[in-house]
Amino acid sequence: MNFKKATKDLDLKSNDRFFLKLKSPFAPKQYKDLKPEGFKIFTFNSGFKKKNDDLLIIIFDQIVNVACKYSLTTMPSAPLIWDKKNNSGKCKAIIVNSGNANAHTGKQGIKNINKYTRELAKYLKCSLQNILVSSTGVIGEQIDSEKICKKIKILPLSIEKKLVDAARSIWTTDTFVKTSTQILKIESQNIKIYGFAKGSGMINPNMGTMLAYIFIDCVISSRILKKLLSDNIQNTFNSISVDSDTSTSDTVMLFSNPVKKINTKKNYNKICNSVFKVMKELSMKIITDGEGVRKIIKVNVINAKNKTQSKKIAFSIANSPLVKTAIAGEDANWGRIVMAIGKTKEKINQEKISVKFGNHILAKNGKRYEKINLSKVNKYMKNKVIEIEVNLRLGKTYSTVYGNDLNYEYIRINADYRS
Amino acid sequence: MNFKKATKDLDLKSNDRFFLKLKSPFAPKQYKDLKPEGFKIFTFNSGFKKKNDDLLIIIFDQIVNVACKYSLTTMPSAPLIWDKKNNSGKCKAIIVNSGNANAHTGKQGIKNINKYTRELAKYLKCSLQNILVSSTGVIGEQIDSEKICKKIKILPLSIEKKLVDAARSIWTTDTFVKTSTQILKIESQNIKIYGFAKGSGMINPNMGTMLAYIFIDCVISSRILKKLLSDNIQNTFNSISVDSDTSTSDTVMLFSNPVKKINTKKNYNKICNSVFKVMKELSMKIITDGEGVRKIIKVNVINAKNKTQSKKIAFSIANSPLVKTAIAGEDANWGRIVMAIGKTKEKINQEKISVKFGNHILAKNGKRYEKINLSKVNKYMKNKVIEIEVNLRLGKTYSTVYGNDLNYEYIRINADYRS
Repeated sequence: MNFKKATKDLDLKSNDRFFLKLKSPFAPKQYKDLKPEGFKIFTFNSGFKKKNDDLLIIIFDQIVNVACKYSLTTMPSAPLIWDKKNNSGKCKAIIVNSGNANAHTGKQGIKNINKYTRELAKYLKCSLQNILVSSTGVIGEQIDSEKICKKIKILPLSIEKKLVDAARSIWTTDTFVKTSTQILKIESQNIKIYGFAKGSGMINPNMGTMLAYIFIDCVISSRILKKLLSDNIQNTFNSISVDSDTSTSDTVMLFSNPVKKINTKKNYNKICNSVFKVMKELSMKIITDGEGVRKIIKVNVINAKNKTQSKKIAFSIANSPLVKTAIAGEDANWGRIVMAIGKTKEKINQEKISVKFGNHILAKNGKRYEKINLSKVNKYMKNKVIEIEVNLRLGKTYSTVYGNDLNYEYIRINADYRS
Repeated sequence: MNFKKATKDLDLKSNDRFFLKLKSPFAPKQYKDLKPEGFKIFTFNSGFKKKNDDLLIIIFDQIVNVACKYSLTTMPSAPLIWDKKNNSGKCKAIIVNSGNANAHTGKQGIKNINKYTRELAKYLKCSLQNILVSSTGVIGEQIDSEKICKKIKILPLSIEKKLVDAARSIWTTDTFVKTSTQILKIESQNIKIYGFAKGSGMINPNMGTMLAYIFIDCVISSRILKKLLSDNIQNTFNSISVDSDTSTSDTVMLFSNPVKKINTKKNYNKICNSVFKVMKELSMKIITDGEGVRKIIKVNVINAKNKTQSKKIAFSIANSPLVKTAIAGEDANWGRIVMAIGKTKEKINQEKISVKFGNHILAKNGKRYEKINLSKVNKYMKNKVIEIEVNLRLGKTYSTVYGNDLNYEYIRINADYRS
């Protein structure tokens, strides 16, 4: 995702932005839309939402390998409990609905999943263990499995949809379609990696209300699929935070769709790099569509003692309400950065720290930098992407995380969500 | 503080509240104003703020015992560094300024404190070790010690002020005066305990941008003073959070002003109880003046395994942006409570949990309560104080913490603070 381009594309009148429910200023103008190979996409309006599609069913031509990562919440939704119990690492079909998260619904929530997955397993003549489910939306309402069963029954009559339709059918407060595609040439074959995601609020590492489904169209073993997911998740989906709130439902699934065959061991690095690009683009699309987002905050904490330290401090800055409101107000309030570093309780040396906004040094060696060019800094703060760099001068590791501003629009969306 | 009364006192037009900088709806209509015994209060406008007093000097008639608690930040302000290094547990005078926090100002920040404390020590003919300092306001600007020195020079000509003036002179974004008084009869004497505080944003346990000064007008040893502070701080100042942000400057000081003599050992519980009441009232006044506050959230987490668990879950709820915006929107969105419990990673049993808003059960045994009376719940959500109870059914400990709603006004205050 090209931030500069996204910023240039902005055609938002500044007076509008706080009071209308607007598309994110980072919304891409165009989407590449691939027709998937090796699986079929079906979407429906099944009545969870008043209008627009709210049900996605993906059916693979054959049974495929899959690796999954779920929210680390201790209050998992019924689909997470169900998937973790049932998932065999093999998948024939996925059922995802939006509008109802089927979370905190007790044993009845699980029973309802049993009903609609059995319906699909019967139709596909596959085992329940080959079906995966996800749900996103309001917490605490029992899901009406009959709504999903009805659509499963009309699958034979339904027309296939595209990746963009799949992406759109799982929206909650999203304002733009989130897809990503990479094509890499391996052993004279074009290997495609493509995915789609949803996510807007409750976004925090481990992993916010976000769902992501990524497909590689070649044979990959379960072990390598898992490794691809683990190797890339820290610097992608686990480096973004809209509001520090972790969802009950987050899920990332990586599928090997066995359309082609290559030597995956020999080409691991190439594949890994392309999977990273897709996961990075999807995670950046999620953060740039964070609820009410008008500005993106990119926080680099460099020269830390270790990774835990750099990431903890980076997220403390990106999640601080006072930092987020300062960015919304286009105020280079580096004092709040200092506060956010201090509140982590990480052992640092205050006198070694420097803070930069973009290329502008604001604090150096534990105090205000004397040559601050305020007019240039103020101009910088009008950008749509604000980069904050904290140099701890303690070691050699670093972390980069992404957050966004906290503004009237976030409040409007979240104070009104259910009404 | 009487919430019901505070709520009844509300004379706010609902259309105004989001767009004007208004006094907190919880502001008391009247203040008791005591003339202090055993010390003198002086306040000045010294030029840190454009108008209103911004400098407080308190001079004790004799040297008194003091116990202090400071922010646990790893980026302490110069006054915190200075106090911790110099403070001998004995105090002749306090200097507090608002408008400039003297934080992240390096060695120069310390030198500047040396200048103005030396000026006061010279005037009072006391040691530097008998002076305490605090500062609150913008971070990162060097403090002009000359401004303070000038006022110290005119102390002999200045008139004494009252407790309310002291409270007002240390405001930043506060909207009402925060004082508290208790009188207790011990050994036929009226022992007064009184204090004042400031605090509005960056309020989090350990302890947010808050300053509090509490005086007991009888002889108490340093050891007992420290114990009084430690015994009471967890359930008062460390149980409130406006925005989860911890300041560089927070300070609570408890003074024994030796006007009277009593047996403190024998009467410890009585004294402790009254100190608790003063600390509780001051902390409640801070949270009810939280930046932009329109509603107070009282979170009770009961039947937890241990205190760490109950407090962690309670603060996770009180600090969640999604919970805070739901309260602002008068939405009994208990799903977000469930989410906030889950994100703590505390080991709980989802199927045992129940959630109440006021007297209304919303979730029971890990799912939605079936007999919710929505119209009654919606009516309850219009209250100014919303009580949320989470029953974990794991053990016997509990925690109560206080937070507030996240609304347009918080954003307005914090996006515009420096402009």
